[in-house]
Amino acid sequence: MSELKNDRFLRALLREPVDVTPVWMMRQAGRYLPEYRATRQKAGSFMNLCQNPELACEVTLQPLDRYALDAAILFSDILTIPDAMGLGLHFTTGEGPKFERPIQSEKEVRALGVLDPHAELQYVMDAVSLIRKELNGRVPLIGFSGSPWTLATYMVEGGSSKEFAKVKGMMFDNPNAMHQLLDTLAESVTAYLNAQIAAGAQAVMIFDTWGGALTPRDYRDFSLQYMTQIVDGLTRHADGRAVPSIMFTKGGSAWLEDMAMSKCSAVGLDWTIDIGEARKRVGNKVALQGNMDPCILYASAARIKEEVSTILASFGQGEGHVFNLGHGIHPMVNPDHVAVFIDAVHELSAQYHKP
Amino acid sequence: MSELKNDRFLRALLREPVDVTPVWMMRQAGRYLPEYRATRQKAGSFMNLCQNPELACEVTLQPLDRYALDAAILFSDILTIPDAMGLGLHFTTGEGPKFERPIQSEKEVRALGVLDPHAELQYVMDAVSLIRKELNGRVPLIGFSGSPWTLATYMVEGGSSKEFAKVKGMMFDNPNAMHQLLDTLAESVTAYLNAQIAAGAQAVMIFDTWGGALTPRDYRDFSLQYMTQIVDGLTRHADGRAVPSIMFTKGGSAWLEDMAMSKCSAVGLDWTIDIGEARKRVGNKVALQGNMDPCILYASAARIKEEVSTILASFGQGEGHVFNLGHGIHPMVNPDHVAVFIDAVHELSAQYHKP
Repeated sequence: MSELKNDRFLRALLREPVDVTPVWMMRQAGRYLPEYRATRQKAGSFMNLCQNPELACEVTLQPLDRYALDAAILFSDILTIPDAMGLGLHFTTGEGPKFERPIQSEKEVRALGVLDPHAELQYVMDAVSLIRKELNGRVPLIGFSGSPWTLATYMVEGGSSKEFAKVKGMMFDNPNAMHQLLDTLAESVTAYLNAQIAAGAQAVMIFDTWGGALTPRDYRDFSLQYMTQIVDGLTRHADGRAVPSIMFTKGGSAWLEDMAMSKCSAVGLDWTIDIGEARKRVGNKVALQGNMDPCILYASAARIKEEVSTILASFGQGEGHVFNLGHGIHPMVNPDHVAVFIDAVHELSAQYHKP
Repeated sequence: MSELKNDRFLRALLREPVDVTPVWMMRQAGRYLPEYRATRQKAGSFMNLCQNPELACEVTLQPLDRYALDAAILFSDILTIPDAMGLGLHFTTGEGPKFERPIQSEKEVRALGVLDPHAELQYVMDAVSLIRKELNGRVPLIGFSGSPWTLATYMVEGGSSKEFAKVKGMMFDNPNAMHQLLDTLAESVTAYLNAQIAAGAQAVMIFDTWGGALTPRDYRDFSLQYMTQIVDGLTRHADGRAVPSIMFTKGGSAWLEDMAMSKCSAVGLDWTIDIGEARKRVGNKVALQGNMDPCILYASAARIKEEVSTILASFGQGEGHVFNLGHGIHPMVNPDHVAVFIDAVHELSAQYHKP
């Protein structure tokens, strides 16, 4: 593997000194880019795009050619795992993801086997290897997975949900079945992320999109516990150091201290918390990733720079900040605004990293 | 007016002693009740139901005939204000509320006049008076309004939104126009709630459904500030006491201390915070309303009682708790489960109110 030319992102995750604050964006390979839309059309379907390593590599690299991003993230979807488990994923226009065979009973939970990522998701590992090769050391590559709780919501509801009636119904009335499902998913996600690391991922992120829909008690028991289990099971480097990991629960800023107690390297923040406040609360336990409101990218260049400046000042002097949006970039954002954002992070952050 | 036979709800809002914890439910007059669906069908449309005082009174009282609720809440919709301001509200099946003439420019903001509730929304005040008469002192009647920020999201987006691109666009790039819009709405909501109080409402609640989509900075400047302005402008009783008010920001549990600094009587909580933790944070400043996950009502009777017991124990001994769900009751809930919930609050809470 080629030597890494830009290691700011990995250094910031480990709270080591950097020259400027590193920055990347959730969904940076996405629909706001015309070149992404062209590749997506060429692929024919979203799943074809995920399952074709050459095309997944192509869209992963597209934003790096436009912007001075400090990390690449594997292009894939969190629902590849339940698809590989046999639930039959398909996408319907306007309605989002749907599963043909959702999990509806304890019997179906018990029949679910732990994923063998090499048997079922080799196309992801092939994409990771190819992206690492094509990156040629420009920036590190992030692998990722959905959290067990978030995957379970889609698997039990059969698709997206606003109320989570079915999955919470199982959680409340049959907690043993729910724990069994989450344990199977935690083992599967661990195996999946370790396979991504073996294929070349240099850091991993766990996306807990729906943990914020839980009470604090249920969050700890049904989401955080299983994310912690995954972090504990991640492969280490040959010298014993952990592969950097990021844990992100959308709507979870009330539980930062709990997340920071896991052995993750960094906690992702949405925009509903002041990052300076978050830093005080987690102390030196973890780095922080975030936390600009994605809607700022609709605003003027001056307003975008002002918001970047406010967030950098709030985090303050010192190490342990990876700049990011608080959620994925919206499809309708003007790509020129993204350049303003990325450049502003680098220009305005040098003053906070004096040697 | 008849003497109030059950004043637990008002006493709890003022943190005065009660025999058992009072309880009501957001959207208690709603689609989960077959008798509501029958009246709704008789009305022909949702707006007809809102605009007909006799039918609005009928559905307001329906849940009180089934359950031992400690308060009634006016049946209406938060979007009656923008409708009365001329934006042309209509409901499309499956897509929710839509405005024919959304606010798209600073010019349109400046052309917007403050609402005269008696000219435009007299049907609401007629419903309030009729409900008070029909209640005949059984329980207190709650009036309500949407918060200025929440109303502005619908008025600028033209309907429901997930991303708030337009309204945040105006907020970021033309904050003066947004402040003008919010000030007009705050004056309108104040006049509207005072008219409801004059017609017979014994407490009022401000619903800030979308304040949780903001950063802490923007929440304080664009939502909380205007809710505080409304609370400051509420009519007082003849003896100078404030009419009890409840401020509820969904997803706003990070900002409880800020809300408690306003002169509201109580802060509403969703289910993402432990109510005992919230009580510690707000101290003796305000009462708390909440905070059971509405999904618990899909669970078994035993599980519902267990959750009620957990929340009561978390709040602990003493006064200042109005039990409620953390959001509106879902339409698919079995009405029998609601009886289990309401009765459990009364049965299990006596031990926390020893004289």
